[in-house]
Amino acid sequence: MALKVGVILSGCGHRDGAEIREAVLTLLALDRAGAEAVCFAPDIPQNRVVDHYRGKVVAGETRNVLVEAARIARGKIADLKTAKAGDLDAVILPGGYGAALNLSSFAEQGPEATVLPEVSALLKAMHAAKKPIGAICIAPAVVAKALGHLHPRLTIGDDPGTAAAVTACGAVHEACPVEKFVVDRVNRVVTTPAYMYDASLRGVAEGIERCVAEVLALAAGR
Amino acid sequence: MALKVGVILSGCGHRDGAEIREAVLTLLALDRAGAEAVCFAPDIPQNRVVDHYRGKVVAGETRNVLVEAARIARGKIADLKTAKAGDLDAVILPGGYGAALNLSSFAEQGPEATVLPEVSALLKAMHAAKKPIGAICIAPAVVAKALGHLHPRLTIGDDPGTAAAVTACGAVHEACPVEKFVVDRVNRVVTTPAYMYDASLRGVAEGIERCVAEVLALAAGR
Repeated sequence: MALKVGVILSGCGHRDGAEIREAVLTLLALDRAGAEAVCFAPDIPQNRVVDHYRGKVVAGETRNVLVEAARIARGKIADLKTAKAGDLDAVILPGGYGAALNLSSFAEQGPEATVLPEVSALLKAMHAAKKPIGAICIAPAVVAKALGHLHPRLTIGDDPGTAAAVTACGAVHEACPVEKFVVDRVNRVVTTPAYMYDASLRGVAEGIERCVAEVLALAAGR
Repeated sequence: MALKVGVILSGCGHRDGAEIREAVLTLLALDRAGAEAVCFAPDIPQNRVVDHYRGKVVAGETRNVLVEAARIARGKIADLKTAKAGDLDAVILPGGYGAALNLSSFAEQGPEATVLPEVSALLKAMHAAKKPIGAICIAPAVVAKALGHLHPRLTIGDDPGTAAAVTACGAVHEACPVEKFVVDRVNRVVTTPAYMYDASLRGVAEGIERCVAEVLALAAGR
């Protein structure tokens, strides 16, 4: 039986949703490893819509996180509320600012952020079932906030401000280069910084491949 | 000097724009090969906006091809009108229905399609300069229409209707499995079918990697 991995998307585009390249590379690494990826996204309005050409918020425009994430998933995606920890062997959260805008309010509230109930519930259920959680780029901040009471060891790269914010959530931060990952074997949390750096795509790909491989190894070994 | 390759995007999402995964895998293959990717898209309204979750056209919504393509390019993208064959060693067109809706009218007019002037001009200038053109998925239809008078040999997979339509444009069609490519060494056109099949992501990646490698080999060897 192939391992079944939930991939939690937060839209489609790094400034207001899921980081597209991180999401695609996660799906590719899973497919190449023989795992089955199942995409989910919350059925909520995006916090904002950003013009990615001009880098500016578009006033008055609204988009739905699930509908936009379906662009990456090629339509094969379900409402995150339907995700059940019992059906999954692992979950992975690609990054993009959508993790900090739509899956949580980390972008605006830092350590005081709230996490979307369906995200928080799934992460807590996965942890309770001893199933691994992967998180990429800024998405470890969501894990830090949802599971901060467990003091997960994780990375968001080397940005001091963001590292301080996840530490204030309860996480133990560890700096990490783009092509590597940090694993917390006790809490089964695997993280890689990806586009937290102004990195090459091949560097981002290398870190994600290793992160996904570690998530699958933990899922297979539990 | 790294080879400089123009990547022509047609939006962001396979039903109304560029096929996201094909675009990302093209950029990754270029980066891994040490080539420099330069993204372009036309600054025009999309032909349509499709809800990728429900698979339905969204009435009344408009989006701009360049602005949406910037999501894949992470903002590093220019108006296709500014692309100059003299500055580039090759161009590659990822697929997605945007190639047939926004870069051309192939989706609606088949062999009678028109090709967007800036696309047609660039493809003809690249050909005249003996520089290679790569095209993925449905994008070979754009090449077939723009360069049909040269009878380029290319593939769109094995769909009989689409194969007949590109043949009617003047192209010589050759069936090809997802993980392979077709090369026309005389016209320097390299094509791979990708998501013209209901294929695995790893199969699509394999075909694109080989297609990009062949484009770069032709660019280096001219």
